Amino acid sequence: MSKLIIYDTTLRDGSQGEGISYSVNDKLMIAQELDFLGVDYIEGGWPGSNPKDMEFFLKMQKRPLKNSQLVAFSMTRRTNISAKDDPILKAIKKAQVKTVAIVGKTWDLHIRDVLKVSLQENIEMIRDTVEFLTSEGLTVFYDAEHFFDAYRANQEYSLSCLLAAEAAGAKAICLCDTNGGMLTSTVSAVVSQVRARIKTLLGIHCHNDADLAVANSIAAVECGAEMVQGTINGYGERCGNADLIPIIANLQLKLGKECLPEEKIKELSKVSHFVSEVSNMKQRNDQPYTGSSAFAHKGGMHINAVMKNPMAYEHVDPSLVGNHRRILVSELGGKTGIFLRAKALDLDLSKEDPQTKKILKTIQELEHQGYHFEAAEASFELLIKKALKKFNKFFELEGFRAVIEKHSNKKITCEAILKIKVKGVKEHTAAEGDGPVNALDNALRKALKKFYPGLSKMKLCDFKVRVLDEKAGTAAKVRVLIQSQDEKDSWSTIGVSENIIEASWQALVDSIEYKLLKDKTSQ
Amino acid sequence: MSKLIIYDTTLRDGSQGEGISYSVNDKLMIAQELDFLGVDYIEGGWPGSNPKDMEFFLKMQKRPLKNSQLVAFSMTRRTNISAKDDPILKAIKKAQVKTVAIVGKTWDLHIRDVLKVSLQENIEMIRDTVEFLTSEGLTVFYDAEHFFDAYRANQEYSLSCLLAAEAAGAKAICLCDTNGGMLTSTVSAVVSQVRARIKTLLGIHCHNDADLAVANSIAAVECGAEMVQGTINGYGERCGNADLIPIIANLQLKLGKECLPEEKIKELSKVSHFVSEVSNMKQRNDQPYTGSSAFAHKGGMHINAVMKNPMAYEHVDPSLVGNHRRILVSELGGKTGIFLRAKALDLDLSKEDPQTKKILKTIQELEHQGYHFEAAEASFELLIKKALKKFNKFFELEGFRAVIEKHSNKKITCEAILKIKVKGVKEHTAAEGDGPVNALDNALRKALKKFYPGLSKMKLCDFKVRVLDEKAGTAAKVRVLIQSQDEKDSWSTIGVSENIIEASWQALVDSIEYKLLKDKTSQ
Repeated sequence: MSKLIIYDTTLRDGSQGEGISYSVNDKLMIAQELDFLGVDYIEGGWPGSNPKDMEFFLKMQKRPLKNSQLVAFSMTRRTNISAKDDPILKAIKKAQVKTVAIVGKTWDLHIRDVLKVSLQENIEMIRDTVEFLTSEGLTVFYDAEHFFDAYRANQEYSLSCLLAAEAAGAKAICLCDTNGGMLTSTVSAVVSQVRARIKTLLGIHCHNDADLAVANSIAAVECGAEMVQGTINGYGERCGNADLIPIIANLQLKLGKECLPEEKIKELSKVSHFVSEVSNMKQRNDQPYTGSSAFAHKGGMHINAVMKNPMAYEHVDPSLVGNHRRILVSELGGKTGIFLRAKALDLDLSKEDPQTKKILKTIQELEHQGYHFEAAEASFELLIKKALKKFNKFFELEGFRAVIEKHSNKKITCEAILKIKVKGVKEHTAAEGDGPVNALDNALRKALKKFYPGLSKMKLCDFKVRVLDEKAGTAAKVRVLIQSQDEKDSWSTIGVSENIIEASWQALVDSIEYKLLKDKTSQ
Repeated sequence: MSKLIIYDTTLRDGSQGEGISYSVNDKLMIAQELDFLGVDYIEGGWPGSNPKDMEFFLKMQKRPLKNSQLVAFSMTRRTNISAKDDPILKAIKKAQVKTVAIVGKTWDLHIRDVLKVSLQENIEMIRDTVEFLTSEGLTVFYDAEHFFDAYRANQEYSLSCLLAAEAAGAKAICLCDTNGGMLTSTVSAVVSQVRARIKTLLGIHCHNDADLAVANSIAAVECGAEMVQGTINGYGERCGNADLIPIIANLQLKLGKECLPEEKIKELSKVSHFVSEVSNMKQRNDQPYTGSSAFAHKGGMHINAVMKNPMAYEHVDPSLVGNHRRILVSELGGKTGIFLRAKALDLDLSKEDPQTKKILKTIQELEHQGYHFEAAEASFELLIKKALKKFNKFFELEGFRAVIEKHSNKKITCEAILKIKVKGVKEHTAAEGDGPVNALDNALRKALKKFYPGLSKMKLCDFKVRVLDEKAGTAAKVRVLIQSQDEKDSWSTIGVSENIIEASWQALVDSIEYKLLKDKTSQ
């Protein structure tokens, strides 16, 4: 197994992603996680470009890495100054790293229109910068910005930029598809051609603007690149950078290239989730390898087949990357799906049992009405337990009334008045809220709390409404999804009705019943 | 420019995506949008597998497509029955389509472990099915499930499945990477080899489990495939299907292959957003070509360079796909955006005007509070017109009260009582509804109708509620989006508040004011 070099730039290029804004502490936590994963290089930031990046490098000096090497990013010297006098290059020394990645121009359009210097001056900027940093005892990697556009525009000039960096002592040359627009076949052809002209270790750095960053990175490796740059979860400007997670999994599990120590591949899901958490970005459900849907099966025939042989609809064993299989409940999932979901809930339900058939029919009818149980596993569990007579009512509703009032431009007020019977005792109470459902929720809990104090630990954390339009000629139905949580778990419930308050009430009651049942079982 | 065939399976394979559950009406709307875009084929579903899909095909018979052809999906006959007696194949006739896609097995592992028939019997199932449907006058496409796994496992047998379909009269053979695990170089090699053995038109159908579906589809085209199957936004089981949006954009804009009529490429962003909206799936910001971040620039150097030459950090001109550049930092960026949006609405707003600065500030404040005007252009237009004093109130609210009542298990009732002043006249009325907002809507229109009879032509067609991220220390805000339509147009409005009824009321009033303003202007 040949060893590939994995170069992570989540902390530098990844931080350019819209919605991402790392604190120094975020960066320290991610660096630690990347070191645990065992990537070869961690590009930490650009010392001298902003105080936060410098603070990160200074703090890292007290937190030596175990498996990875820290890299500082910078760029070629400015046009009107010598490398040793350029303050941004001087700042690298303060960062106290052993390796520096220098980005420079190779595309004549960019040199002419943006940098506004001569082609020859650009070559000298590359040479001076690499020579100066090498003479300072640093290992220098040269990142050839826009290399693929440059090669298309002016092949010989773009190569002369790489040769200048090589001659000046660069230890790696990284070809960048900065605009992310290259097709895979172009990347393959260009990398093969460059490989024949350059002796230095070759890297690849792709962006995802054409949805090809992962494919292009792998193609480059197949054509001779030995280092891959990318970010965890593909974070980065515009459409993001190449996502290191599927790149590492594909290269190591499918092409037999060693990217990480073998035992670390199963940490990919954990690291992917950790970085998404610290970045405050929602993890994509459909994210290859690590998303929650990546090994989720919904179609009945698929579920059936996977039970016979997982290879039937799984390209790799999910446990290899620390993920797991999920069987989704839906009208498409058939009897097998319901059976498996029930089994996961430790409910005694056999496929041949007439009960199962009855439950299946109920679920199909409900899904036809607009219920959607794959998004509401708690309601699904209650439905099965009620069908199996394993559920005793915690309370009975006698009635409620909610009143909403608004006077001209004043604030709206909402009040709910509610009557229930709990363990034979009548409760009659009222509460306010930010809307009728919130008021009802507050009133219901107020009435229940003295009987079930565990409810005080629970809160509703999400509430979604969508209008369904199933059948012409009748009023549109509304689907309400409620997500709730307590200190241990979170769960989802559903309600469907032509009346939004009825739908909300169903989801609300399911949510509270689920919590009460959960507490009772764990007692 | 050679013509490629685009085959959309959003309504069938896309509906397998976790979280997607299309109503018949959703399917009709998406089919109409795909027809507008001009894809060659629209796979509508699997008639006979569930009542919803059959209902869709029956309704489509009254809605002829202008540019696309409708396809029914089905599978090879069962093992113990002749093709003509297989009820699922008979159901195709009722669907009244001209083209049918038949999926069948090619992988010996699958035939042995899942289907549990002999390799020879599988060949006969393919042959019988294709022959039977062809004899019924249908154009038959054969989808070779798991073809790439099959080819790796047993090259000659997998090819013999394709040859059986070809000999039986299939008009296209589609190679499927069903598990989505193939590397791009493998797809290229296999498609080239198959191309040399099969005369029939060749298609490609990829899944995204290795994050390579788009690259693999393009590689297949470069190696001789003439039809690409995929879904809008890459919806589909597990990690999704190949995303047709970047596939079409890459092939047409970069490889010069005609996928859609030239003038339709700029509709890709609109179609992508429309399908995400109907699917009730959040549009990914970083989605290549169509995401809101796809041409968004955050880094200062990048912004500076793009101002000098957009090619510096944009792989294509965003307007080619109906998207636009966004500058994420600085007030200047915001102003440009508002200026451009106002221009699109034919509103007289100049970038230098102090009014523009004031409007910008208001919008920035509102967006900070959770308003999201991209999804609510009618509210945006009203906001600008109000700021420019180009709006006169149609009515004034004096107050309202809504009462919701439920008694034990009886149906909920909702009633609204409302007092408004219209053209100096007081109106005091009441109405019932399927929830407090519906009741308020009914009461408000009842009060307004005698003054503005055009309101009777308008209806609310969608209503969405989302809880926004909770900020520490304050209550969560709710965002309500309302979509309305009349016989000519549809428009969207927004409301944001801690109180769901307040948010709904804002969106409701905007919707009605927009309609009244529209009618007034067109008089």
